Amino acid sequence: MTLRIALAQINATVGDLVGNKTKVVEFCARAKAAGADIVAFPELCVTGYPPEDLLLKEHFITSNLKTLKEIASGVRGIVAVVGFVDRGKTGELYNAAAVIHSGKVRLVYHKQALPNYSVFDERRYFTPGDRDGIFVLNGVPVGVSICEDIWVNDGAVARQAKAGVKALINISSSPYEAGKRAERLKLVSSWAQKAGAYVCYVNLVGGQDEIVFDGASMVVSPSRKLLTAGMQFSEDLVMADMNAAPSKKTFRKAVVLKSLGVSEKPKFLPALPEPLLPIDEVYDALVLGTHDYITKNGFQKVLIGLSGGIDSSLVAAIACDAVGASNVVGISMPTKFNAEGTKNDARQLAQNLGIQFHEIPIQLVLEANLKLLEPFFQGLPFGLAEENLQSRIRGNILMAFSNKFGWLVLTTGNKSEMATGYCTLYGDMSGGYAVIKDILKMKVYALSQLVNDRAGCEVIPRSVFDRAPSAELRENQTDQDSLPPYPELDALLVAYVEEHHSFKEMLKKGAQEPALRKVISLVDRSEYKRRQAPPGVKISKRAFGKDWRLPLTNHYKAF
Amino acid sequence: MTLRIALAQINATVGDLVGNKTKVVEFCARAKAAGADIVAFPELCVTGYPPEDLLLKEHFITSNLKTLKEIASGVRGIVAVVGFVDRGKTGELYNAAAVIHSGKVRLVYHKQALPNYSVFDERRYFTPGDRDGIFVLNGVPVGVSICEDIWVNDGAVARQAKAGVKALINISSSPYEAGKRAERLKLVSSWAQKAGAYVCYVNLVGGQDEIVFDGASMVVSPSRKLLTAGMQFSEDLVMADMNAAPSKKTFRKAVVLKSLGVSEKPKFLPALPEPLLPIDEVYDALVLGTHDYITKNGFQKVLIGLSGGIDSSLVAAIACDAVGASNVVGISMPTKFNAEGTKNDARQLAQNLGIQFHEIPIQLVLEANLKLLEPFFQGLPFGLAEENLQSRIRGNILMAFSNKFGWLVLTTGNKSEMATGYCTLYGDMSGGYAVIKDILKMKVYALSQLVNDRAGCEVIPRSVFDRAPSAELRENQTDQDSLPPYPELDALLVAYVEEHHSFKEMLKKGAQEPALRKVISLVDRSEYKRRQAPPGVKISKRAFGKDWRLPLTNHYKAF
Repeated sequence: MTLRIALAQINATVGDLVGNKTKVVEFCARAKAAGADIVAFPELCVTGYPPEDLLLKEHFITSNLKTLKEIASGVRGIVAVVGFVDRGKTGELYNAAAVIHSGKVRLVYHKQALPNYSVFDERRYFTPGDRDGIFVLNGVPVGVSICEDIWVNDGAVARQAKAGVKALINISSSPYEAGKRAERLKLVSSWAQKAGAYVCYVNLVGGQDEIVFDGASMVVSPSRKLLTAGMQFSEDLVMADMNAAPSKKTFRKAVVLKSLGVSEKPKFLPALPEPLLPIDEVYDALVLGTHDYITKNGFQKVLIGLSGGIDSSLVAAIACDAVGASNVVGISMPTKFNAEGTKNDARQLAQNLGIQFHEIPIQLVLEANLKLLEPFFQGLPFGLAEENLQSRIRGNILMAFSNKFGWLVLTTGNKSEMATGYCTLYGDMSGGYAVIKDILKMKVYALSQLVNDRAGCEVIPRSVFDRAPSAELRENQTDQDSLPPYPELDALLVAYVEEHHSFKEMLKKGAQEPALRKVISLVDRSEYKRRQAPPGVKISKRAFGKDWRLPLTNHYKAF
Repeated sequence: MTLRIALAQINATVGDLVGNKTKVVEFCARAKAAGADIVAFPELCVTGYPPEDLLLKEHFITSNLKTLKEIASGVRGIVAVVGFVDRGKTGELYNAAAVIHSGKVRLVYHKQALPNYSVFDERRYFTPGDRDGIFVLNGVPVGVSICEDIWVNDGAVARQAKAGVKALINISSSPYEAGKRAERLKLVSSWAQKAGAYVCYVNLVGGQDEIVFDGASMVVSPSRKLLTAGMQFSEDLVMADMNAAPSKKTFRKAVVLKSLGVSEKPKFLPALPEPLLPIDEVYDALVLGTHDYITKNGFQKVLIGLSGGIDSSLVAAIACDAVGASNVVGISMPTKFNAEGTKNDARQLAQNLGIQFHEIPIQLVLEANLKLLEPFFQGLPFGLAEENLQSRIRGNILMAFSNKFGWLVLTTGNKSEMATGYCTLYGDMSGGYAVIKDILKMKVYALSQLVNDRAGCEVIPRSVFDRAPSAELRENQTDQDSLPPYPELDALLVAYVEEHHSFKEMLKKGAQEPALRKVISLVDRSEYKRRQAPPGVKISKRAFGKDWRLPLTNHYKAF
């Protein structure tokens, strides 16, 4: 007996009940036309993931239930597994999967393992379930579980495996992190072996605020063979045939579905795309996250302050890949501190990318501001106030364009800057989306090199790579006046921010004490800036965002 | 037999292990000197509450355990109940209470009910406990529980009551909300009656980012009599004598502490301060929250943009009560759109408060900016871009002062504005602390009236109350050009924001449909502004902050 499964790796949008329904219906039809017996959709595909506090609105839950019913009523000739929010008798909520057959919801499974770490807050909303989640189709027992359930050793999936199901379907909305795809494959394969069953893992795709879902759905056979895999970072319909003999066991509480009949199925070759290289994976995550934030929030064009430095160059390149060069505008806003070289590089980059470009010198506005402040600042040396002022004037100009023309401002700060506070609040931090806020400086260089490699030419001018990084807010400034060299800095940030290591551990691992003290102090005292920063794509184990909840008022000293 | 209990209502600071230890030691000594047998401290008083992601740092947990040991070693002649973070054998964490006697921790109780709603994320960090939490002193059995435990009907407190304890000690860090004190008193009294025991409720006091703890600790007798109560919004040591006969029951697993001996106890009159009126309560919460944010973050002076309107007037008055008039600087930054009346009111207010004041007209800077933009904005009408520009120039000036002199900028936006987005990102939203962000406009008027009532004169000029609110960003502008009248708006915001009511429910309750549609749209589409707003004091059931986690990308339409 062959069961054909289709994994509908869709890009759902949070709150878009109508749009998500339309996608589910469309992918159901495609799966059915391709001869699938079962089509599975990602976790909470009706509401989008994560719906966050929309879940506290009763009317939202009611609308989602209505939407599920509407979806169910149109499902014929195929079994659909659809993620939605279920409401219990006392009003409690479940992260749920509906198994739909012949126009009706025949089985509802409730997620049992509710993640409440990292970016996840599922205990804020959901009650853990206690149902088996097993249905039988054409005599073949199939277990349904949801995301985190499969990451737990002794939970619902283990019980389904022990009960003897022949296929495990896990519907997920699993955010991208560098290296996560390989980790998932390992996990899914080990369940296939342990259970002696097919494991069908369907994942969401698309960007939602700071999170990017990478798709990369998969089916692994009982012999641990990867039968098929979904594209990374785009919608896909992934299919596989499972050869499973009907089980002779009886399954208590399992729902037995009426056979769909055995019809001639169209032939197909299961897709098995080559996984992306690590650096390409990160780049594509940035492009998708940025694209989805822009378009799902109703913007068409974006605006970027181009300094001629590597960060804004990379962001401009990503923006072009996200929404097309004709939708990207670059503005350079030099003062007397900006060298000819950087000004030229900004212009050259814009030309290479083919984006609209303006140079708007702000020296006169800067002087007008300084004149106002003169009576109060008299006799005090040029300092941070004057430096930040330049950055803030630029922020104002960009926001004026944004307000006038409805363009979204993309900020250009990287993670090394966000971590150490080497950035100006209400200045270069002004904007709606911080594309590379989770990218450490050395990775900014690597991604920029990738841009040129993919293009086969120097889209980002060589001089941008070669010049010592500088904010150009005073004479002869370089980043390294204030910060340790970037390779050293980035290593310390991985240890202190991403791993939460202690001062002592880091010393033991060879960190230089003066640099370490400086970096820890900078990170600790910049919390107030990060709190007011725009969101940006998370690609690391620990990003500044929902993943990082440090108090502002905090007297703890790590050394 | 009389047991004298002292409740040490301290103002702990998050992460300040040394400072918190010093406070605990000091209050222990005071309690002992006053003849107390037991002194109880608030939940997590060693680490401060809430420590948030500091709890993910192993070295922080280790330091907190070391601090608890240091505290314990000095406790003699009194039993101390101290909140700390305990670590289990597999590294799991508990929100814990140590019962300390003769220099040793004799009993550790683990919180069982872990709140994970509203501003709370305790499931992110802690594992629920399963211990009894009962000790016996001088033959009197006493139960220890932590905060949320007492809000649960059938948890640890119910089991302690059933076991027959004579006193229930609950150590809390319960954030202030309007009306919460009365609610707690009702709860505590009902437990006293149910258990036939004294209930000793000790609460933290002080501000931590957006949360304010109001103290108001209490002891209620088995006959539901409020024996004593702590001050609201300030540190206090609250004492009561409990007359409890030694129990003849034996308590399995209870820790029997050696008697401290019966010595002559100094006499005292239990304090029973009059509870504050609701409007005073809110005002004092704002003052304490603002004071603690300023001082715990190492600032001395604050800076406020004074427009001559009611919001900035109120914030200036609160700032004066928080840190003293000599530490408050007001700056008025008029353009040609600012009327003489408002400019005069700003100056008058500053004079009445006795604060430093500067008028810095920004018309020339505005014109310099507009000139830069002219080539691009040519032929387009004056609009939002030009309005926001004025606000952003002001933000820049304030931040320049902040950078130059190290003063903290207080923002002046109220909740009605934050809700509807009637505020400028990187403009009037620029600053470190948003004092009245949880105060709806009509309550701004009430609090401003309170300022004058308390002073017995018109600190805030009458004309500020009487003038129609205006942002003065163009000719003859008033808030009501863009928003429904404030009494109507505020009522809709309570229903939509604080109660999460649906469009239909609100219509049914009499909302006007056009205004309602407008308000819902404004709230929904302003999420991106709120996400980048500074923190401010939470006083309502649902504040914009940790309490409000709506997605930015969100296609859900409530109508």
